[in-house]
Amino acid sequence: MDYIKIPMDIEERSFEIIGEEMGPHNFSDRELKIVKRVIHTTADFQYKDLIYIREGAIDSALEILKKGTTIYTDTNMAASGINKAALKKLNSKVECFVAREDVSQIAKDRGITRSMAAVEKAAAEGVEFFVFGNAPTALFKLIELTKQGKANPKFIIGAPVGFVGAAESKEEIEKLDVPMITIRGRKGGSGIAACIVNALMYMIAR
Amino acid sequence: MDYIKIPMDIEERSFEIIGEEMGPHNFSDRELKIVKRVIHTTADFQYKDLIYIREGAIDSALEILKKGTTIYTDTNMAASGINKAALKKLNSKVECFVAREDVSQIAKDRGITRSMAAVEKAAAEGVEFFVFGNAPTALFKLIELTKQGKANPKFIIGAPVGFVGAAESKEEIEKLDVPMITIRGRKGGSGIAACIVNALMYMIAR
Repeated sequence: MDYIKIPMDIEERSFEIIGEEMGPHNFSDRELKIVKRVIHTTADFQYKDLIYIREGAIDSALEILKKGTTIYTDTNMAASGINKAALKKLNSKVECFVAREDVSQIAKDRGITRSMAAVEKAAAEGVEFFVFGNAPTALFKLIELTKQGKANPKFIIGAPVGFVGAAESKEEIEKLDVPMITIRGRKGGSGIAACIVNALMYMIAR
Repeated sequence: MDYIKIPMDIEERSFEIIGEEMGPHNFSDRELKIVKRVIHTTADFQYKDLIYIREGAIDSALEILKKGTTIYTDTNMAASGINKAALKKLNSKVECFVAREDVSQIAKDRGITRSMAAVEKAAAEGVEFFVFGNAPTALFKLIELTKQGKANPKFIIGAPVGFVGAAESKEEIEKLDVPMITIRGRKGGSGIAACIVNALMYMIAR
């Protein structure tokens, strides 16, 4: 069988096809890199209309990544989708706090969910870069903590998917005055959250 | 803020909403569990029309899972999306061969991609349960090996996503006489592949 076997060639050709098919838009060059990568990850052109990239958000994200940071993710899946080679070049790391033992213990001691304990722990440890691809409850928790002055997010990717709370969680997070990229409505997911991180990293390290 | 905080409650309510909104269908009860979980993972009702569940495929998958097996995945992301507690109950494990050192070495020695070396290695080690959520090249490789009698897949999830080779890889795999579940067309992804495995496991262990 004859097929393209080189991953980078596949990606380049895919981005060309997406550009040809996506139709008119008002995205900047940098925004377009993010939008195309989301469509590349999902084969779903609707994301063109669902993505919200707040003005200044890309600059804020790159500023944090350039100095090296710990990226919080709400799932192991989002963490595993983030490119480790690019992270390393940026002296950054990704951590899914929900998998940590001390977080399990906090959740048990206080009778709260691990998702919520994970956000509290990340906030307490000064995490600035938050990535949500799954859990509306975690996103709601970050909103609460931020309003209480207990969390200081400098950049948020809000992309929970689902039918209960997901759309609402993204409406609520947009009320915070924080640089962010969200996927509006029910759609989203860990893969999408991860690929937005990758699109940002690839602007400065690949 | 008032929001549902219990993951199992969220899932149950989500499945109800999906049932209400998905409209008429001809799925069996077991098929419906898979279809609903895919829609739950993506918030995309189009998967109702894209999923192909071959007759007997669910029985074949459950038979393999019941005896305990090693599940091959083409990405770490698919592996990380598969429920570890359910796997453990089934005396099964998941392995993303592409991340293995011996696979890297084979790829380097023979000048082939790691994706292809990973499938070869899995086939040589007698893996029966293959899960593809990303790489059309890996899927094509399994087709080649199966035709050559060098691989013996007993169940395949074919869900690569993308614009170059993904749809074609799924058309080709369907020509094999093997129990399988595929996502037709361009759509798919690691999260979808993983959630199909979970839907199957939850029929016998949760």
